[in-house]
Amino acid sequence: MIAGRSIDHVGIAVRELEPAIGRYELLGFRLAAREVVADQGVEVAFMALDGGTSVELLAPLTEESAVARFLARRGEGMHHLAVLVDDVRAALAEARARGWQPVDAEPRRGARGKWIAFLHPRDTGGVLIELCQKP
Amino acid sequence: MIAGRSIDHVGIAVRELEPAIGRYELLGFRLAAREVVADQGVEVAFMALDGGTSVELLAPLTEESAVARFLARRGEGMHHLAVLVDDVRAALAEARARGWQPVDAEPRRGARGKWIAFLHPRDTGGVLIELCQKP
Repeated sequence: MIAGRSIDHVGIAVRELEPAIGRYELLGFRLAAREVVADQGVEVAFMALDGGTSVELLAPLTEESAVARFLARRGEGMHHLAVLVDDVRAALAEARARGWQPVDAEPRRGARGKWIAFLHPRDTGGVLIELCQKP
Repeated sequence: MIAGRSIDHVGIAVRELEPAIGRYELLGFRLAAREVVADQGVEVAFMALDGGTSVELLAPLTEESAVARFLARRGEGMHHLAVLVDDVRAALAEARARGWQPVDAEPRRGARGKWIAFLHPRDTGGVLIELCQKP
């Protein structure tokens, strides 16, 4: 079994970051961090509530990024669900042992220095699940 | 401003509850509650991690339910994002003051006895947002 600890964040694809930040501020979220993740072709904004789990707004910087393709196909909306684990590498091995075929064979660096790997929606009931591990 | 406290849960539409429960158990979630919400035509299962925010799996009981229509249109996947507030009625008033047109004019009873109301994805960047208040 994969030892999920908590839901770290919910990733939400948006066309533009500024109006989306404003929408979540209206809901009581505060802007906790903002970062360009160059190798994924996105700029992200983490919107936090005191309760723990945050929202990660993802806006594409290039037309070739996965988020730009998601927006073209589905429009703005929820993009992924991030589950915090102690060890992404071990979690990937558990997923493969179950017969799942993760998007990422190895953990890679994501926003906020975390180690991340994605599970494929084909295996997880249509939900792109990010496994993430604190840096 | 709407005083969001925490992300209460992420609602995920599934065709069948049993295999979906198994998938989230593999990810370390435990089944916390299971309930038929008759007036929404769904059976739900709350899958919890220690970290707070949980996943609400929603399976349709009738072809006419909103979740059945969602599945027909988009397939399985993330359905809504639930934000805990102290007062759903006050939050709806704030949303209307902003020019938003909530799906629900008044709070109604949801799963686990909570008071809930939905904001429309048209106003919230493609995300169906549930405002929920502890019973």
